[in-house]
Amino acid sequence: MTQFCDGSVPAVTNTRDAEYPRVNPDGSVTFRLDAATAQTVAVQPGGGDNGLGVGPYPMQRDDEGLWTVTIPPAVPGFHYYWLLVDGVAVNDPNSLTYFGYNRPTSGIWVPEKDVDWYGPLDVPHGVVRCQWYRSDVTGKWRQIRVYTPPDYDTSGDRRYPVLYLQHGSGEDQTGWTTQGRADLILDNLIAKGQCEPLIMVNECGYAEPPGQEPLARPSFAGQPNEAAMAAYMVERAKRLDTGFGAVVVQDLIPFIDANYRTIADRDHRAMAGLSMGGFQTLQITMTNLDLFAYIGAFSGGPWGAIDLDTLYDGAMADAVAFNERVKLLWMGAGTAEARQLSRLETIQDALLERGIAHVAFISQGTAHEWLTWMRHLHDFAPRLFR
Amino acid sequence: MTQFCDGSVPAVTNTRDAEYPRVNPDGSVTFRLDAATAQTVAVQPGGGDNGLGVGPYPMQRDDEGLWTVTIPPAVPGFHYYWLLVDGVAVNDPNSLTYFGYNRPTSGIWVPEKDVDWYGPLDVPHGVVRCQWYRSDVTGKWRQIRVYTPPDYDTSGDRRYPVLYLQHGSGEDQTGWTTQGRADLILDNLIAKGQCEPLIMVNECGYAEPPGQEPLARPSFAGQPNEAAMAAYMVERAKRLDTGFGAVVVQDLIPFIDANYRTIADRDHRAMAGLSMGGFQTLQITMTNLDLFAYIGAFSGGPWGAIDLDTLYDGAMADAVAFNERVKLLWMGAGTAEARQLSRLETIQDALLERGIAHVAFISQGTAHEWLTWMRHLHDFAPRLFR
Repeated sequence: MTQFCDGSVPAVTNTRDAEYPRVNPDGSVTFRLDAATAQTVAVQPGGGDNGLGVGPYPMQRDDEGLWTVTIPPAVPGFHYYWLLVDGVAVNDPNSLTYFGYNRPTSGIWVPEKDVDWYGPLDVPHGVVRCQWYRSDVTGKWRQIRVYTPPDYDTSGDRRYPVLYLQHGSGEDQTGWTTQGRADLILDNLIAKGQCEPLIMVNECGYAEPPGQEPLARPSFAGQPNEAAMAAYMVERAKRLDTGFGAVVVQDLIPFIDANYRTIADRDHRAMAGLSMGGFQTLQITMTNLDLFAYIGAFSGGPWGAIDLDTLYDGAMADAVAFNERVKLLWMGAGTAEARQLSRLETIQDALLERGIAHVAFISQGTAHEWLTWMRHLHDFAPRLFR
Repeated sequence: MTQFCDGSVPAVTNTRDAEYPRVNPDGSVTFRLDAATAQTVAVQPGGGDNGLGVGPYPMQRDDEGLWTVTIPPAVPGFHYYWLLVDGVAVNDPNSLTYFGYNRPTSGIWVPEKDVDWYGPLDVPHGVVRCQWYRSDVTGKWRQIRVYTPPDYDTSGDRRYPVLYLQHGSGEDQTGWTTQGRADLILDNLIAKGQCEPLIMVNECGYAEPPGQEPLARPSFAGQPNEAAMAAYMVERAKRLDTGFGAVVVQDLIPFIDANYRTIADRDHRAMAGLSMGGFQTLQITMTNLDLFAYIGAFSGGPWGAIDLDTLYDGAMADAVAFNERVKLLWMGAGTAEARQLSRLETIQDALLERGIAHVAFISQGTAHEWLTWMRHLHDFAPRLFR
């Protein structure tokens, strides 16, 4: 991997030895594709404006068939993108792929300057376990990822609290430990004594009972259809109690408590999630407060009007009782995601009026993307189990 | 996922809910791409003839911009492929990606009939751990995958033998537990009592000492350049002792023995690998027989002429001594990979003439691809540590 004289470096999200895309010192990014037979090539950022700008950015062809473009300085963080080859959205062969948009998708990491809280540092590291388990709810084997803290294998009979942490729409159980670097964030917090050693579990937030067809998803394209996605989310909510919610309560928690050295009570169990995962988290935890005492919604929450008397079967109707029972209700957004920021303010107004204790966290300068949620985890995790 | 009236089913290697590619009852495969703006689209199998035939297979466009082709019945197993969109090799957005050809690459699984030894079955499952560890040889953090058998977390102080199992050229530490389903193969063998419960370690076979630039690899294209790849392999061999070989001996084995409940002696340590990984395995084990007693080369071995008096510093020069020391020397190939089959015969002739005990295994009908190596593991693993 080469640093050029101009100070540019290959992105850490590149494939082995790929020199492009390169991140330039000013945060601009240079993309390149070897495609002599293509008529047009462009860079298409994921999701409207995810920090790479809106695009598409047409690339220029040189005499040897190399197409190149440098796009304006990007917001730091992880950004999904595609290349449009003669108008067809495809992954960049120079990028590793990350599960988003319901499929492996190119991504680029634009680093923040002078920040190392998500690096692989010289500290003790936990382990991320990829594990099959049987779900009675779906009648199928499912794959989860389980982070165990650095001392898990050497601490004898010591038992640990558990954080169930969920991805967003179109992603899966791999998101938090690839795009989100959650294992490294926790390693670093634990090494500094800023976070209780904990077990983190990442499931895949899609689940159907036997015989139920998966919901038809909005069709895939360079620019996702926001209205269709919203309608899809509403329909998902209706199915949550018998789908993924049932998997968490009936299959996942019992499996984790049976197979890991957990402290298997509500005071040592947290759930959080980003975007769709935040939406799921609030619905699952609020309707199962006998199971969870710590709740986090990262850029995600209830859709529609907020009526605390009826929302989640009235879980928050009695503020005094709720505040006594729930040790942490944490919500966040980024300043560059207008819709989620506005939703957060609406919810917060309702909570303040009712007197519901909560933490609200705003990530400066970041949009509906992973750096927002990494910062959320970095603030949320130290508040757990203390 | 829908079975159509024609009996076709979506490939298990597809992304979530993708209906194409579909495997038909006769083993032929139907590919489809939504690409209204493309001028030509074709299916390009990986690596010349990997079981999908040589290709490329031009796809036909319908009025709505869907491109489709059905290719002839394929050899069962896992096959890499790309789509050529106006001549540019890209991944199929309907396929999951698998690390091969030095990057995430589309792959399709064409199932064998009436075979379940690599399925997720209703048996106890082990865990695949993704783990960071620090390499002194490279001066960098590296990521490994470690399979622990189903009873590992509940067996108290029980200690286990270790199999170090390596991927092929252009792949990485994820290959054996994604493309290769090694965890499921071992789960199933262990459940039947046909294999000793063991720990399996998968490293990434690329490593350079600090300051050494990675070898320039043959350029990527739909059809890889075989001659350039061969020259590249020869150069890699020269660097093995100070590169990946040093990582295994100086960094990896000590890390595993310090962090897992291993039986840390040569009689309980095996190494095997496929293709480039077999080539590496033979060189690393034969020159470190104080560390390894079980050796497997899956479709990979020494290049050039075979002279047992000098090969691997003469490790096999004295057959009696070698046979006493090495408990298993196992080599395999597939009938549809002519070059490796011929190499295997050459080596076997030399071993037979010298009187070196060994096992040779031929996979019927399979080429230089994963089903060959999955069958190799399925035969190899039960012979270990007994």
